[in-house]
Amino acid sequence: MLIVMDKTATQEQIDRVIGSIEKKGYTARPIPGGDRMAIGVLRNKGAVDASLFLGLEGVKDVVPVTRAYKLVSREFQPEDTVIKVRDAVIGNGHMAIIAGPCAVESEIQALTIAEHVKKAGADLFRGGAFKPRTSPYSFQGLGEQGLKILAKVREETGLGIITEVMDYETFDMVEEYSDIIQIGTRNMQNFSLLKRAGHAKKPVCLKRGMAATIDEWLMAAEYIMEGGNTQVILCERGVRTFVNHSRNTLDVSAVPVVRKESHLPIIIDPSHAAGRRDQVIPLSRASVAAGAHGLMVEVHHDPDNAMSDGAQSLYPSQFESLCRQVDSIYKLLNNTGQDNL
Amino acid sequence: MLIVMDKTATQEQIDRVIGSIEKKGYTARPIPGGDRMAIGVLRNKGAVDASLFLGLEGVKDVVPVTRAYKLVSREFQPEDTVIKVRDAVIGNGHMAIIAGPCAVESEIQALTIAEHVKKAGADLFRGGAFKPRTSPYSFQGLGEQGLKILAKVREETGLGIITEVMDYETFDMVEEYSDIIQIGTRNMQNFSLLKRAGHAKKPVCLKRGMAATIDEWLMAAEYIMEGGNTQVILCERGVRTFVNHSRNTLDVSAVPVVRKESHLPIIIDPSHAAGRRDQVIPLSRASVAAGAHGLMVEVHHDPDNAMSDGAQSLYPSQFESLCRQVDSIYKLLNNTGQDNL
Amino acid sequence: MLIVMDKTATQEQIDRVIGSIEKKGYTARPIPGGDRMAIGVLRNKGAVDASLFLGLEGVKDVVPVTRAYKLVSREFQPEDTVIKVRDAVIGNGHMAIIAGPCAVESEIQALTIAEHVKKAGADLFRGGAFKPRTSPYSFQGLGEQGLKILAKVREETGLGIITEVMDYETFDMVEEYSDIIQIGTRNMQNFSLLKRAGHAKKPVCLKRGMAATIDEWLMAAEYIMEGGNTQVILCERGVRTFVNHSRNTLDVSAVPVVRKESHLPIIIDPSHAAGRRDQVIPLSRASVAAGAHGLMVEVHHDPDNAMSDGAQSLYPSQFESLCRQVDSIYKLLNNTGQDNL
Amino acid sequence: MLIVMDKTATQEQIDRVIGSIEKKGYTARPIPGGDRMAIGVLRNKGAVDASLFLGLEGVKDVVPVTRAYKLVSREFQPEDTVIKVRDAVIGNGHMAIIAGPCAVESEIQALTIAEHVKKAGADLFRGGAFKPRTSPYSFQGLGEQGLKILAKVREETGLGIITEVMDYETFDMVEEYSDIIQIGTRNMQNFSLLKRAGHAKKPVCLKRGMAATIDEWLMAAEYIMEGGNTQVILCERGVRTFVNHSRNTLDVSAVPVVRKESHLPIIIDPSHAAGRRDQVIPLSRASVAAGAHGLMVEVHHDPDNAMSDGAQSLYPSQFESLCRQVDSIYKLLNNTGQDNL
Repeated sequence: MLIVMDKTATQEQIDRVIGSIEKKGYTARPIPGGDRMAIGVLRNKGAVDASLFLGLEGVKDVVPVTRAYKLVSREFQPEDTVIKVRDAVIGNGHMAIIAGPCAVESEIQALTIAEHVKKAGADLFRGGAFKPRTSPYSFQGLGEQGLKILAKVREETGLGIITEVMDYETFDMVEEYSDIIQIGTRNMQNFSLLKRAGHAKKPVCLKRGMAATIDEWLMAAEYIMEGGNTQVILCERGVRTFVNHSRNTLDVSAVPVVRKESHLPIIIDPSHAAGRRDQVIPLSRASVAAGAHGLMVEVHHDPDNAMSDGAQSLYPSQFESLCRQVDSIYKLLNNTGQDNL
Repeated sequence: MLIVMDKTATQEQIDRVIGSIEKKGYTARPIPGGDRMAIGVLRNKGAVDASLFLGLEGVKDVVPVTRAYKLVSREFQPEDTVIKVRDAVIGNGHMAIIAGPCAVESEIQALTIAEHVKKAGADLFRGGAFKPRTSPYSFQGLGEQGLKILAKVREETGLGIITEVMDYETFDMVEEYSDIIQIGTRNMQNFSLLKRAGHAKKPVCLKRGMAATIDEWLMAAEYIMEGGNTQVILCERGVRTFVNHSRNTLDVSAVPVVRKESHLPIIIDPSHAAGRRDQVIPLSRASVAAGAHGLMVEVHHDPDNAMSDGAQSLYPSQFESLCRQVDSIYKLLNNTGQDNL
Repeated sequence: MLIVMDKTATQEQIDRVIGSIEKKGYTARPIPGGDRMAIGVLRNKGAVDASLFLGLEGVKDVVPVTRAYKLVSREFQPEDTVIKVRDAVIGNGHMAIIAGPCAVESEIQALTIAEHVKKAGADLFRGGAFKPRTSPYSFQGLGEQGLKILAKVREETGLGIITEVMDYETFDMVEEYSDIIQIGTRNMQNFSLLKRAGHAKKPVCLKRGMAATIDEWLMAAEYIMEGGNTQVILCERGVRTFVNHSRNTLDVSAVPVVRKESHLPIIIDPSHAAGRRDQVIPLSRASVAAGAHGLMVEVHHDPDNAMSDGAQSLYPSQFESLCRQVDSIYKLLNNTGQDNL
Repeated sequence: MLIVMDKTATQEQIDRVIGSIEKKGYTARPIPGGDRMAIGVLRNKGAVDASLFLGLEGVKDVVPVTRAYKLVSREFQPEDTVIKVRDAVIGNGHMAIIAGPCAVESEIQALTIAEHVKKAGADLFRGGAFKPRTSPYSFQGLGEQGLKILAKVREETGLGIITEVMDYETFDMVEEYSDIIQIGTRNMQNFSLLKRAGHAKKPVCLKRGMAATIDEWLMAAEYIMEGGNTQVILCERGVRTFVNHSRNTLDVSAVPVVRKESHLPIIIDPSHAAGRRDQVIPLSRASVAAGAHGLMVEVHHDPDNAMSDGAQSLYPSQFESLCRQVDSIYKLLNNTGQDNL
């Protein structure tokens, strides 16, 4: 961390800042410049809290240097983390496509869609049993009945399943049924839930908060890893901006940044990013081309009558086309060599 | 809701949309325009989910008309909700100032600050016992010990207390100790927590999510009211934007909008909006001038050594000045008549 | 346009709104709903200004239905516009790669880079002669001397050239030298410049403003087309958001949206979106995969000593790799058929 | 500036960075930390361009320390700049209220409104003669005829006038007629226009770009001051964010930040920030309470029939109320002492 002093800072103020740094167990290194003094903060393990110094008299600015995450960083673990779930492999050159409806609505619905997506090439099946909804008056999911249907889907199709957990109380139940546990965008900084996920025996798919920086997202993953669970998949799903032609703005650049900073696999959910069916295929192609380790896509055999997110769900035939296209791009990139990614 | 068709939409597509509307129990009203057809959706109680129709063939756009919240709306309850906690009154012309440290660090710290802020004019005391922190390596709060210290503060000073609840598991405990239960910005759409808060016997202070629209925020409050708890205070604390001179961007316009749309009181937290001490007093003045029903301000007797958020905590003398200034503005506005707000 | 009335709106207020609509030459169509009245505004050519009605008493909201652009819309011209400049073709299945330095620094620099990029597969050469710089103390470009160097590059390599115009005064000069005239992100709503570009004899490449919606961007293109110049290329270059790991956030979804709404070709500038060299290749792959008609990339033979934007300029060898990769993706997508895009 | 190296950076990479710094005429100061090396860049006048170093091998991050603006900074000129225009004084404790219609529509309209606002307490009259409009089909202003009407207003009422200039070609004309020259939000980084404004003999009111940081805004003002014109007024008018209940999000915190960083006066335009009449008065109160040196407000005697921006224009009676309210707040704050601001 670097503390930048006002041009007019007095020696007394500078000394007070140095004292404050040392009192906290760090080493202070004054760096006189042309115009003003800066003070380096050294010997810190991990990041120092900028707010500890920002308010001291004579301090103009505090500039963080070290990132705060550790276990999730590539500096800590240079090799890619690989997640294996039944036949699916995610990470280190392996791509997985997760597909299914927004919400599990009935056994027949789930099975119908599962057969479609399996045939088209999906590696895992998604479907919500507990649904986070903006309105208390919207369909909230089938709960445990939905989980049982998901288990049935797995039994019938052999596809591993992923579903969202919304709270501590139902965590055990979701953990029991699901192959991958999803933590949604609205819970990315639900730290109690993250801590519980740190003790889970199943991989966790952590969606990016809709206003989270990559640092905050990786810190949320750090909560899970710090609890002992090293099986974390990161999922970019669009961030909130002024842009109004899609529900969220897909931040494709998150892919190269996460791949550089972290060893964890990163997948993309183009359906929630777009919020409109007609953008899902182009965004899927873009995601795989950018180097994502997988996709999570909403598919419904009858989206016009879906109980939620119908507008962004693909028809089965569209999903088949998506699979063919991203598969070609993926093979192309991997044939031309991993170093290109 | 209004469904706008493509210029090139066929009669068959139009009929299919009408069928889809009626199948869901609504009334469809075609509105032929110069260039294209629009279709109104009528007889709906509350909002209709736009995504139900956005994906249908021939549909260009879906335009929501009715807002989805009900219990929180001023159309539902024209009179201001007033929250009374010990001697403090919030809403309908009554302003309350909530002050205290970011985190309860020790009994002596909490009592020292409480005495300062009470003397300066604070109506309620704040202090975190359970702290949501971006990093798992940061101080996470004293937990129940912190709650006991808060109870001691109330006993000694007579000030009502407010503290944050982070999860279902510790909700009972927080509810027992605290006079007002705070739900933090990162949990604004933690729906399990909101549902639990709906059964709480204490008022709830619901902070705005850092990327939440006012509609989403009011819908989160609707979750609480729908559970039976009518005592909700809304707290604006800045939203996340590209702006980089403050930690968040205080959205002052939330005050007139919430006051128009809802009967619930709205207060402002300038400390988290700014993230820097030197903006807190001007933002406090602005908030009260805009018509806020109160402020929540971080104060520390020794911010240079605070365990969290030191940079944004006011010194006691600054807080005294803040109280004097906002009190004058408040009186001025209320003497010139409520109709001006 | 749809005007939504308050639930409590009186018949008198409704009548006043209807009168106001008709006074402006439109047709008013009242649409009684369950709870409240809405009023459709019909017989309007193009969009009606929402602000004309938003302030009337009893009006809760005004909802635009028709988009305001006309000449740029696909509804107006269903076939793709194709831009041809020397050997380069942009649009309708033709992709072009534009490459070169941020600024023209010298003849030797420009020629060296031009040879590199031509050999690697670039179709057009870019280079700034007039540079918009945040600081008045930064290098502002070589001016006309830079334009002469660009002409020399064209003469020597046969590549068409593109360079930015910053104002009316130098427009004639830029138009004389350059094959494509670029209007930069900061001038997207410099309407005087757009009007001048409407009379230009050369194609115009219009960069998206960093906080512009697609509607505003297309309206800016409408200014140019309305002046008579139908040769417009749209260039997405990232928008400003809270995200801090790249200089701007590349909005890949702009590609499918623009391709759907407009007949104009859309290219992507990944260099300015990223602001960092290590994101440029992944973003380029993503852009072409999403369906962009081209790329504009910064390349420098000695970026460590570039006079501007060195950090985001590719080394020539990186640019070669980029060309190989995007070329493969482009061919792949076009072999699998245009309907997939 | 501080250059942070990768943990794995080699000594050779470090030496190369040091060489690169020194080659540019700066002094390099290596700062070894616990984990990694950082390198300070010293002896620089003004800011160093981060992009010069960000792309070098082994460099993880580049951290700017010094701000780039000079003439506009309070470090350069500690005393407040004061702008005097006829009877109006802006800055250093003097507040001015600028009011009038969005666009000058006719002599009778302008005079009618001018009389209203003068009587209510306005210090200056605003009105657009050249109007920047998103659509080429919207009313573009009366041009020189509008300027003549403004001159008539000045003659009849004695109020100084302010109007927007859109380009170089009409600059002389606007400069001749207007007392203050306004540069609009869309032209904040129209550097050709800024340079021309640097030679103007009249004060310039520079609106903040809708996606501009304060640094960029002050740098734009630096362009004007660097040209020799020291009479610059900064005008905050809301920034573009995801927030959808107002047209833009008023960034009130810009007031204390600008007042701290710069000696230039800052005023607020609540009308364009809100885009809706019902937020204008609360935002005006908030602005003055935050310490703004003035307001620019749209007023129309018949907003329902205004040719532009009717929805955000106040009725004369509302403007009277606004003046009374902000005047009271202003007096209150200045009686309690300037040091509170």
